[in-house]
Amino acid sequence: SVTLQYFAWIGYSILFILFATGFTHLVSPQAVGSGIPEMKTILRGVVLKEFLTLKALISKVVGLCSSLGSTLPIGKEGPFVHIASIVATLLGKLTSFKGIYENESRRTEMLAAACAVGVAGTFAAPIGGVLFSIEVTATYFAVRNYWRGFFAAVCGAVVFRLLAIWFTEETTITAVFKTNLRTEFPFDALELFAYAFIGVLCGFAGALFILFHRKIVLFTRKKKRLSSFLQKNRFIYPGIVAFTIASLTFPPGFGQFFAGQLTARQAINELFSNITWTTGQAEDINDEEILSHWNHPLTNIYVTLTLFIVMNFWFGAICNTMPIPAGVFVPVFTVGAAFGRLIGEAMAAWFPDGVPSGKEIYKIVPGGYAVVGAASFSGAVTRTISTSVIVFEVTGQISHVLPAVLAVLIANAIANKLQPSFYDSIIKLKR
Amino acid sequence: SVTLQYFAWIGYSILFILFATGFTHLVSPQAVGSGIPEMKTILRGVVLKEFLTLKALISKVVGLCSSLGSTLPIGKEGPFVHIASIVATLLGKLTSFKGIYENESRRTEMLAAACAVGVAGTFAAPIGGVLFSIEVTATYFAVRNYWRGFFAAVCGAVVFRLLAIWFTEETTITAVFKTNLRTEFPFDALELFAYAFIGVLCGFAGALFILFHRKIVLFTRKKKRLSSFLQKNRFIYPGIVAFTIASLTFPPGFGQFFAGQLTARQAINELFSNITWTTGQAEDINDEEILSHWNHPLTNIYVTLTLFIVMNFWFGAICNTMPIPAGVFVPVFTVGAAFGRLIGEAMAAWFPDGVPSGKEIYKIVPGGYAVVGAASFSGAVTRTISTSVIVFEVTGQISHVLPAVLAVLIANAIANKLQPSFYDSIIKLKR
Repeated sequence: SVTLQYFAWIGYSILFILFATGFTHLVSPQAVGSGIPEMKTILRGVVLKEFLTLKALISKVVGLCSSLGSTLPIGKEGPFVHIASIVATLLGKLTSFKGIYENESRRTEMLAAACAVGVAGTFAAPIGGVLFSIEVTATYFAVRNYWRGFFAAVCGAVVFRLLAIWFTEETTITAVFKTNLRTEFPFDALELFAYAFIGVLCGFAGALFILFHRKIVLFTRKKKRLSSFLQKNRFIYPGIVAFTIASLTFPPGFGQFFAGQLTARQAINELFSNITWTTGQAEDINDEEILSHWNHPLTNIYVTLTLFIVMNFWFGAICNTMPIPAGVFVPVFTVGAAFGRLIGEAMAAWFPDGVPSGKEIYKIVPGGYAVVGAASFSGAVTRTISTSVIVFEVTGQISHVLPAVLAVLIANAIANKLQPSFYDSIIKLKR
Repeated sequence: SVTLQYFAWIGYSILFILFATGFTHLVSPQAVGSGIPEMKTILRGVVLKEFLTLKALISKVVGLCSSLGSTLPIGKEGPFVHIASIVATLLGKLTSFKGIYENESRRTEMLAAACAVGVAGTFAAPIGGVLFSIEVTATYFAVRNYWRGFFAAVCGAVVFRLLAIWFTEETTITAVFKTNLRTEFPFDALELFAYAFIGVLCGFAGALFILFHRKIVLFTRKKKRLSSFLQKNRFIYPGIVAFTIASLTFPPGFGQFFAGQLTARQAINELFSNITWTTGQAEDINDEEILSHWNHPLTNIYVTLTLFIVMNFWFGAICNTMPIPAGVFVPVFTVGAAFGRLIGEAMAAWFPDGVPSGKEIYKIVPGGYAVVGAASFSGAVTRTISTSVIVFEVTGQISHVLPAVLAVLIANAIANKLQPSFYDSIIKLKR
């Protein structure tokens, strides 16, 4: 029955979140959150005690698995950076490597490479990983360290993809969210304006996301009675959050209106798909399944996408306030992809024969907009340009390179005027 | 008649080279060579007199056009960096921008961005351009400058590609050397070994290229009588070089055995093509034309490719010793592509049904090897990792990201043990 299904659905999420909360608290509270803000602080020379210990590693790995298992919109990029950094530090305690680590600057280099590995391993994106880790952790960067980071990141990415073959998930080394967008005419030059528009909106949205996240944290802190109550009963807050989000996403309930049953990975794959949803043409059974998720009989794809964006926007912000290992990248990446898809579908409906450019008709490719939206919004939140590189490595297609970089730059410029980066905002909150 | 054709062919090359030599010598000898080594010196704080003047700009632009027009294997990436840097400096002398340039560090930032634009404008590769310019010019890099370089580079790349549409060369914004390689199964995991092998050989070959170039320069310098003779008769050396290269490439003569009639651009496009040359199967008239260039009735494609590699290897090195504006990137990129294609074709002949991995047969894609070879060899010579990014932006396909980065890293590591980078080698020679 639906009631039973409902309790199973929310029980599953709540259980995993509470386990993550309890485990992290008991083993090492250092494992809470992303890890990137702390790594940025460490790489600037500040010593954070017990942040890079075996205890923190266990706490982070188990806590992260449990958090991710809850199906709540939680990322793993930041935690992977933390995990890789701990592994690098622990390796240094092995006698055979000890000589390398006696030099302080060597230690920093090692940590910088570890950060690159963490990002690269999340998405099998070595180039984007190296750049992202530089952007989020470094202020000045020695070019000679650069290839060390690349080497480590490539090894990480190769092993990650080889494991996918090993477990027969894939037949060969491929991109994680492989797309199949039209390449012979990826977009018309005039569409650059629409892409720039995505960049503008993502810039504002990114700043709003950071502001919203900070407001939640400050709210639970300022109200003194609420704060001390939550401190004493530390399962209450994550429990309520998990209950609320799981209730809202419950697929037979409200969740059916915004593709609540999809995991982040499934959602991204479908948002990046090559078909145009507004035309409703499904070419095979895969396409039909995608449309069945997003085209609800009572509403339409615009409503689904808008609800998906709004819901996942605040889910993403609030999930990062829970005392569990959690990243922000994949959630904002998903929201950005949905936003790009929304604009792309609107464009496809507005210009059914494509933006006029010549004699031949080249229809709009909404999947390309989704890719650009994902890069822009995640770029605005993390305040990085390398999301544009990550997005190509992740999709395996680079045909939209110019619109993506353009939109990401605009989003970064706007967000930068309004708010610090998400990670800097957390550093400020922790002071 | 063939004799007339021959004199037209060599006369054309000699004329343009001699014009470039004379013009550069008369207007500003600062325009000789690539420009990247000098920019590296300037960005380290050394003042090079008259290097960034209007005279140097005119000399470089006219000299470069003439050099490129000679059809000799001469690149334009380095000269573009020089040109962009001069433009940035001259802009600073306009009254409206003067305020910005009074600050010394601002000037450096501006020059760094200009270097990025120069690379990005050559290939419409903004991301690779920024990274390449950082790798070849910087030692330490401020992350906050990074997005400025990106912004400038994207603007440059967009304008470059929009001009291609304007002149109706293209219908929309696309990659410069757009490839059409198979994406559903780009390569088998076991092929990584073959790719790594390309990296190893390119590493040694890159070091050899740098050594060979230096030996030529040192040879013409050490022999005192030769040196003073060449100094007095400055048209002799470029004239002899142009005569020799043009005679060798003469298409009805020896040139027919190594695709001598192709420009660098055509050669790269054909080397990156998706068809397998050894099977000799041409699907359409384009494929037939490609095969007709490389599959000589008297020899076979292995001979053609080997000759092409050997010839263009020393052509590329010697062209960079002439007193004209000349870059090294495109020549080594072409040689690398041919080398990769050679390995790829050999692999395709060795494993006609592809490297065994599963039930389905996926044949080897030699075009993918060409892409990796191009990135590896140019990476080894310029000692950069970002060639792997440039190669994706230039081809519009990123499916070979892991093999390319892997091979480029190996090539860099090996070349680094044997020789300084091509640009550092020139800096040493100029001291």
